[in-house]
Amino acid sequence: MSSPFWSRLVGGLTPYVPGEQPKGAGPDGRRLIKLNTNENPYGPSPKVITAIESVLNESLRLYPDPTAHDLRETIAEYYRLTPDHVFVGNGSDEVLAFVFQALLAHEKPILFPDISYSFYPVYCALYGIDYRLIPLDEDLAIRVEDYAQAEQPSIGGIIFPNPNAPTGRLLSLVEIERIVAGQPDVVVVIDEAYIDFGGESAVALIDRFPNVLVTQSLSKSRSLAGLRVGLALGQPALIEALVRVKDSFNSYPLDRLALAGAKAAFEDGAYFAQTCTRIIDAREALTKALVSRGFTVLPSGANFVFARHPKQGGEQLYLGLRQQGVMVRHFNKPRIAEFLRITVGTPEENQCLLAALDVVMGIAMSATN
Amino acid sequence: MSSPFWSRLVGGLTPYVPGEQPKGAGPDGRRLIKLNTNENPYGPSPKVITAIESVLNESLRLYPDPTAHDLRETIAEYYRLTPDHVFVGNGSDEVLAFVFQALLAHEKPILFPDISYSFYPVYCALYGIDYRLIPLDEDLAIRVEDYAQAEQPSIGGIIFPNPNAPTGRLLSLVEIERIVAGQPDVVVVIDEAYIDFGGESAVALIDRFPNVLVTQSLSKSRSLAGLRVGLALGQPALIEALVRVKDSFNSYPLDRLALAGAKAAFEDGAYFAQTCTRIIDAREALTKALVSRGFTVLPSGANFVFARHPKQGGEQLYLGLRQQGVMVRHFNKPRIAEFLRITVGTPEENQCLLAALDVVMGIAMSATN
Repeated sequence: MSSPFWSRLVGGLTPYVPGEQPKGAGPDGRRLIKLNTNENPYGPSPKVITAIESVLNESLRLYPDPTAHDLRETIAEYYRLTPDHVFVGNGSDEVLAFVFQALLAHEKPILFPDISYSFYPVYCALYGIDYRLIPLDEDLAIRVEDYAQAEQPSIGGIIFPNPNAPTGRLLSLVEIERIVAGQPDVVVVIDEAYIDFGGESAVALIDRFPNVLVTQSLSKSRSLAGLRVGLALGQPALIEALVRVKDSFNSYPLDRLALAGAKAAFEDGAYFAQTCTRIIDAREALTKALVSRGFTVLPSGANFVFARHPKQGGEQLYLGLRQQGVMVRHFNKPRIAEFLRITVGTPEENQCLLAALDVVMGIAMSATN
Repeated sequence: MSSPFWSRLVGGLTPYVPGEQPKGAGPDGRRLIKLNTNENPYGPSPKVITAIESVLNESLRLYPDPTAHDLRETIAEYYRLTPDHVFVGNGSDEVLAFVFQALLAHEKPILFPDISYSFYPVYCALYGIDYRLIPLDEDLAIRVEDYAQAEQPSIGGIIFPNPNAPTGRLLSLVEIERIVAGQPDVVVVIDEAYIDFGGESAVALIDRFPNVLVTQSLSKSRSLAGLRVGLALGQPALIEALVRVKDSFNSYPLDRLALAGAKAAFEDGAYFAQTCTRIIDAREALTKALVSRGFTVLPSGANFVFARHPKQGGEQLYLGLRQQGVMVRHFNKPRIAEFLRITVGTPEENQCLLAALDVVMGIAMSATN
């Protein structure tokens, strides 16, 4: 479809395609096991529900606070920063969009990994930003020196997830610091959507490095994918750039319910720690079980694992699992087409996945006999 | 503040400034009467609250439907369209931002009134769109011929609110059609944030005119400013442009609670009709009371009135009311600096406003004696 009414931009866009959100049940009416979009298998803190209930009343007729001050204050306290170090938006996707437009849109190309969050090139197309893909090494790990020593006059910025997605591989804080310190003239964005599952946040670098910006999400570790809240942390000059773009786009991206729920999520540290630990434990168990079935599993610092089987095609496994009512994610892309990205579920869900995998691999093996 | 890390765009932005959202009480601890941001004085339908409660549970851990299909279907049924005629976003401000980027960003300047929604020039700056301000006539009304007969080869699009803001003046559907029919080669956007308070929607033109796009908001007539839901209606080719930009920006701008609440708001037609009627009645009573105090009040099709007093300065009245605990909006801009924009409140709130006005005008009059 095209139209003479479209702006020149529109026809050239190739929008991001998120993982499928099924509406109904799986084949034969069975419940689908949904391990395809890295949601938390546990619900949000009960205090989040209570907090939202407490503002679910006729005050919905009133606009929310356009500055989201209370939420920013809570997040600032959590990270021992001040509110002018905190930006919040309608999911970390919106926050990232503002980051690209406000801090990464320069004349020179920005750098990010060839295998990474596939929304990055989409933002670049949206804002006319040139980019250079930096290949991961043969183990699908980020090579720190590729970024830390990239020739400064030729780059406009750097962004990568830590842990990276969809590989799950984590850089240490020392490695992150090498990159940030090596590139003092450009903004280095650390996209920490998955940092709470065992990584160390680059928030610790904000004090000393004016060029580091950290983005985070409440969709994974805080079980609030359905509420759409993300954030960015950095020195006030970086935050101010995001505020200026946001206030030129939409004064109130966070509704009253999301503001209240997100605040409560940051306040309930005990629940957060508990669910993160359960997921980390389940990830390690799942990894072992996959390895015992012959899979190569990348070391993961996230709430998903990235795994391939030496003898079974990635797409074939993906489709086979789907037929068994288990959804995982498969990327039909160079270098990773043989991998499955499997969200860590509850121990029970992970057992269902493994059982389905055994069926699929049994079928696949007998088909090749 | 400025920073070498900012993209070239950021420094040149002059963000939109929304009306104030007070956090506490007024002077002397009295309750503030808030008539400054055109919120509905009545809460949302009780069915909205119930609908949100019904999805306020552990399903918040899951992403919302990125296509918002159920909500779009409900809105489509309401307007007797199909879902591919409906776009929804995080408040009509976000929807308008997408409209500017996807449908109004052409080489040629777009047209909008010199006195209008002050976010329009902000969007133009954000997306590098040239614009021409078309002066309202001496009665602050839109002159239809200025748009219908504007030389076609020289314009890139048209946008105006109907009723216009902050004047409140309404164009008839016949007048809107003259503009839409007169400019078949460009998109004509009718921003209907306030249409439900007595106007006739241009949705009726969508079937016949591929160039008409209507935007609406749930913040005013449906009492949901705090939930952030807006929409656009038009032929599928126009909607597709918005979807492409949205999907290159943020897959899920509407959270699960907003989707459920917005759907329920459209389903409760009786409540909607009742509150709109109450506000229209209160507007007429308020207009009479202001006229009896010597004000000139523009005819309003909105949930606010735009009024000036021949002898009292706009800023002085605004500040005086504020001191009395009544917030209204004042725009320190050419042609309208003597006006107050007063949101229509409940009959009781409107009485408070009038009483405060009497105090302020009494004070002002005795000060000039």
